[in-house]
Amino acid sequence: MSDLKTRFLEVYSVLKSELLNDPAFEFTDDSRQWVERMLDYNVPGGKLNRGLSVIDSYKLLKEGKELSDDEIFLSSALGWCIEWLQAYFLVLDDIMDSSHTRRGQPCWFRLPKVGMIAVNDGILLRNHIPRILKKHFRQKPYYVDLLDLFNEVEFQTACGQMIDLITTLVGEKDLSKYSLPIHRRIVQYKTAYYSFYLPVACALLMSGEDLEKHTNVKDILIEMGTYFQVQDDYLDCFGAPEVIGKIGTDIEDFKCSWLVVKALELSNEEQKKFLHENYGKDDPASVAKVKELYNTLKLQDVFAEYESKSYDKLIKFIEAHPSQAVQAVLKSFLGKIYKRQK
Amino acid sequence: MSDLKTRFLEVYSVLKSELLNDPAFEFTDDSRQWVERMLDYNVPGGKLNRGLSVIDSYKLLKEGKELSDDEIFLSSALGWCIEWLQAYFLVLDDIMDSSHTRRGQPCWFRLPKVGMIAVNDGILLRNHIPRILKKHFRQKPYYVDLLDLFNEVEFQTACGQMIDLITTLVGEKDLSKYSLPIHRRIVQYKTAYYSFYLPVACALLMSGEDLEKHTNVKDILIEMGTYFQVQDDYLDCFGAPEVIGKIGTDIEDFKCSWLVVKALELSNEEQKKFLHENYGKDDPASVAKVKELYNTLKLQDVFAEYESKSYDKLIKFIEAHPSQAVQAVLKSFLGKIYKRQK
Repeated sequence: MSDLKTRFLEVYSVLKSELLNDPAFEFTDDSRQWVERMLDYNVPGGKLNRGLSVIDSYKLLKEGKELSDDEIFLSSALGWCIEWLQAYFLVLDDIMDSSHTRRGQPCWFRLPKVGMIAVNDGILLRNHIPRILKKHFRQKPYYVDLLDLFNEVEFQTACGQMIDLITTLVGEKDLSKYSLPIHRRIVQYKTAYYSFYLPVACALLMSGEDLEKHTNVKDILIEMGTYFQVQDDYLDCFGAPEVIGKIGTDIEDFKCSWLVVKALELSNEEQKKFLHENYGKDDPASVAKVKELYNTLKLQDVFAEYESKSYDKLIKFIEAHPSQAVQAVLKSFLGKIYKRQK
Repeated sequence: MSDLKTRFLEVYSVLKSELLNDPAFEFTDDSRQWVERMLDYNVPGGKLNRGLSVIDSYKLLKEGKELSDDEIFLSSALGWCIEWLQAYFLVLDDIMDSSHTRRGQPCWFRLPKVGMIAVNDGILLRNHIPRILKKHFRQKPYYVDLLDLFNEVEFQTACGQMIDLITTLVGEKDLSKYSLPIHRRIVQYKTAYYSFYLPVACALLMSGEDLEKHTNVKDILIEMGTYFQVQDDYLDCFGAPEVIGKIGTDIEDFKCSWLVVKALELSNEEQKKFLHENYGKDDPASVAKVKELYNTLKLQDVFAEYESKSYDKLIKFIEAHPSQAVQAVLKSFLGKIYKRQK
C-alpha cells in the first residue's frame, strides 16, 4: 500500500474516534458500538479514488511543494468527507434498488440486525460530514464555501438520483422515456458532480481559490465525469467480467445505459420494436438478442469514436486553461480514466 | 385563519416556486411535477406550530415593534425550513416504522407510484433547506451560524432516532432496556432540539444574538421539549381519543413511553414480571392489563405531580433570565403546552 494511502487510512481512524466522542450527543455504549460498526462496514471499503484525489489534486495545485502534516491531514479529511457522502448515497441507493451485495459483501440493510434502521444510518453518515467540517475547518476563511459546496453537490446528486428513479422505475418499463439528453442529465447530476467536481473543488478551496472564478474547471470535470459514466455503461456490457470484477446486468435491469440510448438513436423502426420487446427482460435469450442488436449497430465502434472524440475535446479544453497547476490536476484525472478497462 | 398563518402559507408558495426553478438543477417536466406533488403532500399539511413559532418568537424578541415585510418573510422562511426538516424526518420515519397513515392520509411511501422513491424524496426535502437558506440568507452576517445550527440540530435528531431505533426495535422485545435515563435521552435528542430549541434559536440569530451566549435558553427549551413529549406519552394512553384525534397504540407498539418507564420504576418484582408479559402485545386483553397496572400504580397522579413540578421548575428558570423579551418567548412556549389536552 502506498504511503499516501496508509496516511489517508490513519486519518479515517482519527475522524471516526472524534465522531464517536462528539460532545453534541450523549452516546450510550450500544449506540457508540452501533455507529462504529456501521462506519467500518460502509465507509472505508471502497477504492477510495474520490477521497485520495483530493490530496493528489491539492498537491498538484501546490506545484510539487512538500505538504505539511497539517495540509495532509486537512486534505485527507476533505477526501473522507467525500467518501462519507458516497457511503451515505450507497447505503440508501441499495435500499431503493433492493440490491443484495455491495463491494463484495451484503448490503448494509440486508444484515438481519439492521434492516430499515439503515435509512437512519444513511442519514447519520450524511450528518457526519458537517461535524467533520466544523471540527477541522470552522476557523478557515473558506469554511462557509465548503458548507455551500457540499450542500450544492449533495443537492445535485439527489436530483440526479430522482430523475434516474422516476425515469427508470416508475410504472411500466417504457423505453420511449430514454434518450441521450435524459441520459446526460442523469449521469451529470447523479455521478459527475460528486465524483469529479467535488474533489477538485475541495482542493481549490483549500488552496484559497474562489470557486466562482473556476466555472470552466467545473464544466471540464462534469464533461469528464459524463465520459467516465459512459465508459461504465460500456464496460457493463462489453468489459471482461474477470477484469471489471462483476457480470453486468444493465440490460436485464432495464437501465438507462448509454448503450441502449445510443441503440435507440441508431435503430430503424423494426430494430426499435425489437429493442422494446427484449430490453429489461430477465432471461438470457432476450439479453443475447439485445447484445446481438448492439453488435449489428456496431456500438463498439460508436463507443470507440465517442471515446477518442471526448478525449480530444477534453484535452483541448484543458490546455486552454491559463494555470499550469490546474491543467496538471485535470490531466491527472483524465489520465486515470482514458481507455480504462475497469 | 389568522392573518399571520395566511402570510406564512403565502411564503410557502414563494419558496416552493423558487425550489422548482432552482438553477442548480435542470428540471425535466416530469421531475418538476414530481417535486411539486411531493412537497404539497408532505410539507404544509401539519399544524405548523414549529414554523409559526419562529415568527412569534422573533416578534417577541423585537418587543412588540411592528415587523417589516422583509422580516416577516425571512422569519417565515426559517419557520418553513423547520417544517421542511420535520417533513424529511416524518417521510423517512414512516418508512422505518412501516407506518400506514400520517396526518390523516396514507404515508407518502404507501402511494403506489412512490414506494421506495420516498427515501430519495426525504433526502430532497432535507436538501431544500440549504437551498432556501442560501437564497435568502447568504449575505446575512449570521448565515454561517444558521448553517451550523441546522446541521447540529439535524445531527442530534438523527442520533435521537438512532437510540430510539436500536432500543425499541432491535431483536427481541426487551423491556429491561427501558429506563428513565434512556427515555430522557431519546426524547431530548429526537424531539426537543428541533421542535423547541430550533425555532427560538432561529429567531435569536435573526435578532443578531450569539447563540453561544444563550446556553441557558437552550437548556430551558430542551427541558420544555422533554416535558412536552412526556405529555404526549401520557395523552397516548390517558387522553380523550376524540380530542387528540387518534387512538393511542404505544402499549401495543412496545414504545419506550414515559408511562412504561415510570411503571417499571414503581413496580415490585411481581408487577414487573406482569409488565414484561403484557407490554407490546397486539391483543386488547394485554393492553387492558397494562392499563390496569398503570392505574394500580396511580400513574395519573404521578404524571400530575410531574407536570406541576416541571412547570414550577421551568417558570423559576425562565424568571431568572435577564432579558424580559427572552422571558416572554419562553413563557409563550410554556403557555401553549402547559396542561394541554391534545
